[in-house]
Amino acid sequence: MPASQKIQVSIERSSWIRKMFEEGAKRKAKYGAENVFDFSLGNPNLEPPPKFNQVLKELAADSAPGQHAYMPNAGFVETRQAVADYLNKFNRPEFSADEIVMTVGAGGALNVVLKTVLNPGEEVIIPKPYFVEYNFYLDNHQGIPKLVPTRPDFSLDCDAVGEAITEKTRAVLIDSPNNPTGNVYKEEELKELAGVLSHYSEKFGQPIYLISDEPYRKIVYDGATVPSIFDTYNESFVVTSFSKDLSLPGERIGYAAAHPDISDKGMILAGMVLCNRILGYVNAPALMQRAIPFLLEESVDMSVYQRRRDMLCEGLASFGYDFVKPRGAFYLFPRTPVEDDVAFVAALQDENILTVPGSGFGGPGHFRIAYCVSDKVIERAMPGFERVIKKY
Amino acid sequence: MPASQKIQVSIERSSWIRKMFEEGAKRKAKYGAENVFDFSLGNPNLEPPPKFNQVLKELAADSAPGQHAYMPNAGFVETRQAVADYLNKFNRPEFSADEIVMTVGAGGALNVVLKTVLNPGEEVIIPKPYFVEYNFYLDNHQGIPKLVPTRPDFSLDCDAVGEAITEKTRAVLIDSPNNPTGNVYKEEELKELAGVLSHYSEKFGQPIYLISDEPYRKIVYDGATVPSIFDTYNESFVVTSFSKDLSLPGERIGYAAAHPDISDKGMILAGMVLCNRILGYVNAPALMQRAIPFLLEESVDMSVYQRRRDMLCEGLASFGYDFVKPRGAFYLFPRTPVEDDVAFVAALQDENILTVPGSGFGGPGHFRIAYCVSDKVIERAMPGFERVIKKY
Repeated sequence: MPASQKIQVSIERSSWIRKMFEEGAKRKAKYGAENVFDFSLGNPNLEPPPKFNQVLKELAADSAPGQHAYMPNAGFVETRQAVADYLNKFNRPEFSADEIVMTVGAGGALNVVLKTVLNPGEEVIIPKPYFVEYNFYLDNHQGIPKLVPTRPDFSLDCDAVGEAITEKTRAVLIDSPNNPTGNVYKEEELKELAGVLSHYSEKFGQPIYLISDEPYRKIVYDGATVPSIFDTYNESFVVTSFSKDLSLPGERIGYAAAHPDISDKGMILAGMVLCNRILGYVNAPALMQRAIPFLLEESVDMSVYQRRRDMLCEGLASFGYDFVKPRGAFYLFPRTPVEDDVAFVAALQDENILTVPGSGFGGPGHFRIAYCVSDKVIERAMPGFERVIKKY
Repeated sequence: MPASQKIQVSIERSSWIRKMFEEGAKRKAKYGAENVFDFSLGNPNLEPPPKFNQVLKELAADSAPGQHAYMPNAGFVETRQAVADYLNKFNRPEFSADEIVMTVGAGGALNVVLKTVLNPGEEVIIPKPYFVEYNFYLDNHQGIPKLVPTRPDFSLDCDAVGEAITEKTRAVLIDSPNNPTGNVYKEEELKELAGVLSHYSEKFGQPIYLISDEPYRKIVYDGATVPSIFDTYNESFVVTSFSKDLSLPGERIGYAAAHPDISDKGMILAGMVLCNRILGYVNAPALMQRAIPFLLEESVDMSVYQRRRDMLCEGLASFGYDFVKPRGAFYLFPRTPVEDDVAFVAALQDENILTVPGSGFGGPGHFRIAYCVSDKVIERAMPGFERVIKKY
């Protein structure tokens, strides 16, 4: 056998996605990239804010010794303190540098937390639709995903979460603002969830953790805010990155934060630092760590994403597409007018519109439009969106 | 339970290392950092070459769009092609960008390769003494380390490797120039090893891979060169980083290269790219990837490390320390004059000399001196080294 059995299966399973991308690439080659409307990737098309370039230039000019050397595996203490100070503006509990581990993006942060807490065979409850990369992340640590439905408006169904909890439940993993729906969980939903988790934590005599994946926290519209899980539940972690709000996904910079009052804090924090090291990340990239303290208040211009959301929502609604208007992130997750979302996405592809079937997110009967693209792409794709739904 | 059982055990097991570091920190606080001679870490004290700072400045000034965005998970094709072109100067087989995956350091690269090939419970043979982080990396993918002895001069014992091979053997993992010994495997050793692996690969009907971890490849002395495993064995991978030769360990930039003639190449390469993504690395840091094509021929000044090696070897030999003179890396691995290497290291610590017991590398009865420190530290530590061995 060449690759491991698991990897072979994963490669075969993902072959349809690869085919979709290949088909997209073929179309770009055939019709010209500007005539193919690619809504398939969550790769922000906005450039980082000007402050980022300024900070980068200053750091590049600063050749003080040791700046590219190893630092403690948790990251530079100045960076971690700056993140803690930033969090202290928005959260009731008081953070110190100790509770912050700088990571290789949110993907790194989530793997660090999962490895810290998961024993093989333990379960993590995930409301669907969800970011399917979580399946891989759980499997890295022999965890088992247990998917639960959300309500039709994608809000949390805490009864469903409660029913899914067993003695093997180690954590609940949420993502708000959500990929792929753009939904933002409200404070009362989080409070209800915290109540359910507290109940079962007590019942089983060990904490059920709440892990919140929040790379889209700053990408919200119509004055929406994202309530903090830190204010409602002590046994909690936030994992996040600067990939989306600063448009730096290629630079792999993020962090994991543990609640200041989490149980057995010393062990948990030591575990997170150890896991950052032994997963092969070792530490978050040094230069980006040094940039972060100057950029915590920065972000790309959210009004641009809001404009695109509005263009897309208005257009699609007028054609008869059915969807929940997203309050955050840069994804729209409309229903497909037929059950077979893969077929519908193929029909859009015939119009040179590239999207992803909802089945790829545990949300069949939907499709995902990533609108982190230029206004022009949205405008020019509109006639195609109209033609396709008219066929159904 | 707060952290997973495995992580709890790891934290407890590593408590002696933590205590050692705490004791070192206490001594620095008490006696002043300049009076504590810290040989415990492989954190290069040389700054990156001037070309690095120049390239970094140029890249920071270049605000062309998309430079910090996601690229293909394997990395920028320009960077991968530059690495392939570089490898083609030194290796008989011809590399293309396809066989190169840019990674989060050598730690990332090794985890990518291990996850690609290992099924749970499969074994990886490692000659000892060895870099013990490998234990964690194998365990990440449920692999089992099978340690085999080397000869007294730390050269490969291919008979021992052959005897350790079973149907469960999936790979042999070597590290040359070696951490902790500084040994460089010779071409004839690698050829003999390739012969053994070919024999058993044929016998068991599947390849036993050779994985070579080579971050110290450029750090060699007295005109030594590091023979390439790519020239002797097709079923092979090299994992490496720019952490040591460019003094950039904090920036987490490295790569994995698969042999151009490796069996089932398509599957292996697809597996590596998938694993880079699903392990949460996603991709190597973008800015450092863009710097690498300009830095492949660069390195820190090796004559500085050679001078330090010579100072240390001459001094310690004159005091009666017994060791194999290293031909590469920046580690010396002398025998301890008593069996108990932990006690000997503690005695050195009493002289404010911080080293690591050989037991920490599967090499009891030795201790590791990392001489990536200033000349002054070596000079000033000499009397302490002398006093301690005189006691024994």
